[in-house]
Order: sequence, then structure tokens, then C-alpha cells
Amino acid sequence: MSEEEAVERFFERSMPGPETKPLFDLAAEFKIGFYLGYAELTPDGRRFNTAIMTDENAKIVGRYRKIHLPGHSHHIETAPFQHLEKKFFDVGNEGFNVWTTQGVRMGMCICNDRRWAETYRVMALQSAEIVVLGYNTPSVNIHWPEAPHLRMSSHLISMQGNAYGNALWVAAAAKCGSEDGFHMIGGSAIVSPTGEITALAQTEDDELIFTNIDLAIGETFREHVFNFAKHRRPEHYGLIVERTGAGAPLGKKPD
Amino acid sequence: MSEEEAVERFFERSMPGPETKPLFDLAAEFKIGFYLGYAELTPDGRRFNTAIMTDENAKIVGRYRKIHLPGHSHHIETAPFQHLEKKFFDVGNEGFNVWTTQGVRMGMCICNDRRWAETYRVMALQSAEIVVLGYNTPSVNIHWPEAPHLRMSSHLISMQGNAYGNALWVAAAAKCGSEDGFHMIGGSAIVSPTGEITALAQTEDDELIFTNIDLAIGETFREHVFNFAKHRRPEHYGLIVERTGAGAPLGKKPD
Repeated sequence: MSEEEAVERFFERSMPGPETKPLFDLAAEFKIGFYLGYAELTPDGRRFNTAIMTDENAKIVGRYRKIHLPGHSHHIETAPFQHLEKKFFDVGNEGFNVWTTQGVRMGMCICNDRRWAETYRVMALQSAEIVVLGYNTPSVNIHWPEAPHLRMSSHLISMQGNAYGNALWVAAAAKCGSEDGFHMIGGSAIVSPTGEITALAQTEDDELIFTNIDLAIGETFREHVFNFAKHRRPEHYGLIVERTGAGAPLGKKPD
Repeated sequence: MSEEEAVERFFERSMPGPETKPLFDLAAEFKIGFYLGYAELTPDGRRFNTAIMTDENAKIVGRYRKIHLPGHSHHIETAPFQHLEKKFFDVGNEGFNVWTTQGVRMGMCICNDRRWAETYRVMALQSAEIVVLGYNTPSVNIHWPEAPHLRMSSHLISMQGNAYGNALWVAAAAKCGSEDGFHMIGGSAIVSPTGEITALAQTEDDELIFTNIDLAIGETFREHVFNFAKHRRPEHYGLIVERTGAGAPLGKKPD
């Protein structure tokens, strides 16, 4: 399949579009807000890995274009499958935002974003209470021979550490099972601001997980241990926005 | 005890000083580099919650003054004990630095710093390979009725999430047991860049924990999933240095 054919086949030019309209209609009927990830083709030809969020009337209230694109931009002959996010997508150009819907401050990210602390922090600084995301994570790491169990444990630890550190709930939905014969991890999970997993998918089939989200738990953490106004020290965080790569010179020696 | 008496009794005017010199002498004899936390009184009267790191000859190679001071600045009559870090200490004024000693890029932080993602990220951006810290964490949270088991789980999850997310090792040493009759958590631990706990103290007595640190594990993560130069997007992280508190206006709506 050529790149043009792939874009034609997999990308959406509108949301909802003809294929997704039935989902919106059904959600509106049942008064269910949802998150949906898709490949977005803009009228001017830009391509983003995008997600939207709806309210209980299936009205889109927020859109997120993925910022942390993993993988590579060129075909790797020796790899069992390709991880071409950097080829097929532009880096998201709208930042990490938070929307109030159904009375809750909601943020979104996509897949690999969940491994980056900045994702959650930028949303927490906008008072996010819940962050939702979808992910497709292959069980085999094509970049180096990573132990298979780490694919699941690092997925969970990333969300647990950052849910706690940002006093928010995280809800993550896997596309699991196999795609083109390649297995993907499951592990759809809901994580509390305590860092605890309060719901975890048990199968690799269609499965509904749910939890009783008490937003006051996050509020308590935001008032005390993670009271940003009292405890954060942005004057010491400068490198986070100044430096893209690692490999800096030695730090300051004591006087 | 008055504030002046407390400072006179608990603060160090030099490091090493008369009481700590024997530790330095013994460490040099056995060729062991170490980390030591203490209350620092500077010649001009400033007070910091400070830690130093030595090389194998007990020469101080790095100093860190604690940045994330938890607790409160005034006596709370109703609390079973006081948490007066904001009263007794100034916010550290030297940032998060990294030093090369014994061939390793080493960073330091102290106690509550381990719960803040910026702590690790600023050091990872200076190519830290190992971050060490000491902590005194009471088992009872005097600020709100937190479930006791969360004191241990949030301690571990913070280090696991951030060790993984920054491709570095974390080694944390507790002062545990009881102080003035108040119990503190144990849980001294060493965490790998995989996010896995590779050593964990089992008791609340003096105990030595150790692990076989393979620095190449961190290097692998830094080359791939956390290749900062390839994947970080500082243009979207601005709020982290612009905003101290939470409670921001609503995010941008989709167009």
C-alpha cells in the first residue's frame, strides 16, 4: 500500500464522518460522553493522531492532537512490523488542554503520551481531575529486546506514578488482542489519585471496566501534598522547557 | 525549646564538623562514597535542608539544598506532632544538579522532592544515571486522615514511575522506626529504570540493602522510548515554568 493509499484508507476528513456517525447517535441516545481516537486529515493536508471527547449529547467538547509521537519515520527492513508514527503524523499543534464537561475538568492524551510526566503536569496545572487516553501497545518492542512483562508493568507504573503526582484520575483503554498477527498488551485500567489501580481489564476481548470515581480524593491531594501554589518552585524547573535532549555539561560544584 | 535553641542544637555550621568527621574518616578508609543529609546553617544565617555526596575518598563532590519543602510554617495546636519545614528552612537556592563521581552521573534530592516529577526530569536532562535521597516520612499524615498503607505505596510508586520515566536508577534511604514516639515508614528501596524495585528493606532496624546496578539498562531506555532529543516537545511544556498554582481558566475549545 502506498502512503497515499494508506492515508486515503485510514484517515478521517471529518468527525463525525459517515462511519462514525452511528456511534455518535447511539451515544446521544444513551446520554454517554465518550473519547475517540482517530487518524485526522485536515483540509490543508496535515495529519494528526487525534482524539476527541464528547459530552452526554455526543457534542464534541474537546480535541487533542498527539504530541509525543514514538517510533521512527522510515521503514525498517529488519523489524517484524513498523512503528511509523513519525512518518504518518505531524506533532500535535494544540498543546495539552483541559475541558469542563458534565461538571468535571477532563484532559486527554494518547498512548505514548502517558509515559511522559509533562503530559499530566501541564493538564494538572489547568486543574484536570480526570485524564483519559487510548493506546495500542505491541507486546514486542521492535527497538530493543525488552522483557515482555515490562510492557505491561511500565504502562501501569507510568499511570500510577503520574496519577498520584498530579492528584488526578487516569482512565486508559487498550486496543488489545492482535493486529495484522501481532499481539498487543491489554491492561485497560482506571487509576486513582492515590496511585492505586481501581479497575483493571482481565481479558483481551471486548470488556467494560468501571469504578466509582470520588473526585474529592483528588481535591484532598491538591489541597495538601500537591498544593501547587504552596509547594511548586518553577524557578528551578527551567531546563524542562529549555532543553530538548540530554547530555548536558556537569552541574555546579559546591563552593 | 525556642527556635534559637533548636537551630543551635540541630544545625551544622560546617560539613564535616566535629560530630561528622569520624564518618568521613571511616568512609575514606573503606573507600566508600556516601550521601548525608543534614540541617545546614550558613555563615550569613540562612538555613537549608541539605545533603552532600562524597567520592570514595570522602571528598564532598556535590551539595543539594532541598527545594520542595512540605508541611507548614506555623505551630498547629491540634496536630500530634509538627511538620515545620517551611518554618525552619529556606527553599534551596542551588537547583537540581548532577555530578560525575566514580564514573557515574549522580543526582540528589531529599524526602518530599521524590514525589515531584520535576525533580527527576531536571536531573535526567543533565544525564543523571542514579538519583539518591534520604527521607523521614511519618506513618501518620497530620494534614488529613490518609489511609496508612498509602504512605508506603505512594512513596514507592513515586520512585517507580519517575525512575522509569527518566531512565535512571533511584536509591532511597529511610530513617524509620520512631522519633519522639511517632512512627515513621521504612521502605528503603532501590528502583531500576524499568520501574522495578530491585531491593527493598524488610525491617525497621539498621539494615543494608544493595543491588547490582547495570547502568546500560538506563542507557537503553535513553536511546529509545525516552530519547529526549527525538521525542520531547518543550514548546508544549510552558505552563510547567509559567504557573505556580492550579485553577487555570478553561482550555482551548476545538475549532
